[in-house]
Amino acid sequence: MNDVITLAHGAGGRQTAELIDRVFKAHFSNPQFTGDDAAVLSIGGADLAFTTDGFIVSPPDFPGGDIGKLSICGTVNDLSCMGARPLYLSCAFVIEEGFPLAKVEKYAASMARTAAEAGVRIVAGDTKVAGKGQVDHLFITTTGIGQCLAGVHTSGTLARPGDVVIVSGDVGRHGCTILLARNQFGIDADVTSDCAPLWGTVEAMLGQTKDIHVIRDATRGGVGTVLYEIASQSHVGIHLDSQSVPVHPSVRGVCGMLGLEPLYLACEGRLVIVAPECEAPAILDVLHRQPYSQDAAVIGQVTAEQPGRVILRTEIGAETMLPPPGGELLPRIC
Amino acid sequence: MNDVITLAHGAGGRQTAELIDRVFKAHFSNPQFTGDDAAVLSIGGADLAFTTDGFIVSPPDFPGGDIGKLSICGTVNDLSCMGARPLYLSCAFVIEEGFPLAKVEKYAASMARTAAEAGVRIVAGDTKVAGKGQVDHLFITTTGIGQCLAGVHTSGTLARPGDVVIVSGDVGRHGCTILLARNQFGIDADVTSDCAPLWGTVEAMLGQTKDIHVIRDATRGGVGTVLYEIASQSHVGIHLDSQSVPVHPSVRGVCGMLGLEPLYLACEGRLVIVAPECEAPAILDVLHRQPYSQDAAVIGQVTAEQPGRVILRTEIGAETMLPPPGGELLPRIC
Repeated sequence: MNDVITLAHGAGGRQTAELIDRVFKAHFSNPQFTGDDAAVLSIGGADLAFTTDGFIVSPPDFPGGDIGKLSICGTVNDLSCMGARPLYLSCAFVIEEGFPLAKVEKYAASMARTAAEAGVRIVAGDTKVAGKGQVDHLFITTTGIGQCLAGVHTSGTLARPGDVVIVSGDVGRHGCTILLARNQFGIDADVTSDCAPLWGTVEAMLGQTKDIHVIRDATRGGVGTVLYEIASQSHVGIHLDSQSVPVHPSVRGVCGMLGLEPLYLACEGRLVIVAPECEAPAILDVLHRQPYSQDAAVIGQVTAEQPGRVILRTEIGAETMLPPPGGELLPRIC
Repeated sequence: MNDVITLAHGAGGRQTAELIDRVFKAHFSNPQFTGDDAAVLSIGGADLAFTTDGFIVSPPDFPGGDIGKLSICGTVNDLSCMGARPLYLSCAFVIEEGFPLAKVEKYAASMARTAAEAGVRIVAGDTKVAGKGQVDHLFITTTGIGQCLAGVHTSGTLARPGDVVIVSGDVGRHGCTILLARNQFGIDADVTSDCAPLWGTVEAMLGQTKDIHVIRDATRGGVGTVLYEIASQSHVGIHLDSQSVPVHPSVRGVCGMLGLEPLYLACEGRLVIVAPECEAPAILDVLHRQPYSQDAAVIGQVTAEQPGRVILRTEIGAETMLPPPGGELLPRIC
């Protein structure tokens, strides 16, 4: 591990995990400390999920959303992945001196609109101002409390050989959108972020069946990083059929030009679901009727062989290991 | 209101209140949205307090503490002021690329130590890294859940004429410490921050009597700002005896040199308590036996006259209005 913080420590991959293990888990160790998307707490008879996320996306405005919408979706989706109905959110702003008030108001309106869609209430807040040049525009940290649905047990440790792997829509749109919004590559493509609040999607799915082993939202590090985490936590292999992975043609085009793997581009409105094969048709049927998962597809299968690895079956039938996540990926995409 | 964010919007005074009213309350309006230190939520039979706070103090290391200790104290104290036992915290870091890992580890250790003292568990976290120059060192946002003690009803709206006003110790030490730590004035004085977790203090006090009307921690804006808020929320006047306000001689000296009012310097380990006069001796007795409130003192009285105002009786017996809070105060003290 380096002696200084690098962008890779914030990219959601291997180095982030090392930082959490070495520094935070080491000091904060307690039975409720979570490695999942949210901690599960039992307080006065209620089972609650509790999660926090900082949003520093650059630029803060992008096609398909802005930092305000993103800050609600991220926390709502982390609660949803634990099978917890999002109830209450707090939000803490750090704003740069000189930042336009009208923009703060625009982001607040985005937050309110997204919270209303997700059925969650923003009940507490904090505002700090840092001097010009001491924070890049504005950062928002949201923290959420959700109520765990009875009978739901999902975790990255619960994938079993024979399970199918489903993604709820085309992958990599958010990461690709941010990449293009930075204008560093001179590429013009029609891509909008998939940023969306997914409680409605999860609720509909759990209304159909509670026999789902893993639900994860593929944010930093994309679907590829999530699959490697599941493979590692559950000690299983994951075999993907590369032709089944839904990728928007524009995203595929940009990835081709820049040599990027769409599976490693961030999503902000996509779920990775691992469930028994017999449940797959009913789950897909529900997902196809929800607004943010009309392109949901089975993309692979969990295997007992090659535990800890993600194997890609290519168009011509060859099998190749998906390179494990690591490195800087794309910083500041969330 | 200006068209851009100014440092005053983050100073905790009038402009902060205007920003909250105009932007956040306007958009986030709902029955649980709080103007107090924490929202009170009823979930599955449990009454919970929920609060968030961003910490951007500059410099992050100062005599008497660091940003890690401060980030736990701030949220623990906000819960405590609602009469809620702090149970669980989340923490979200935004760290500058190139920041020394050893420092991150030092702050994590401070956080763990302070959390242990307060009896609270850190259960969820998030780490983001911003590029060099895009965040000043590191920011920490903590969010807390506490369980409300039965029979406690404290709020800034509950001060009544005849009540006494107590501060739990000498005022302005934290603000003065940060001011000196910036080395902008070439003043050398022996001052350490009062930064401390106060749940033990509040619990001991509520064990003695639950007949307490207001408990507030005097952070941004200091005791003066808190008193003006109480005077306004409760529609009462507050009369202070300036000689009774405990001020450390070094703080008084620095304030004298720089023309500052100690009542407007931030504290991070001081409570303002408003309670019936008959309870004052017992409350002071408890406070004097707790580690962070040995200099607790009655500093004034609530009156029906001059509602909304804080009146200062000077050493020579003259009465003068404490100038209302406003302006930039000291930025980045928390």
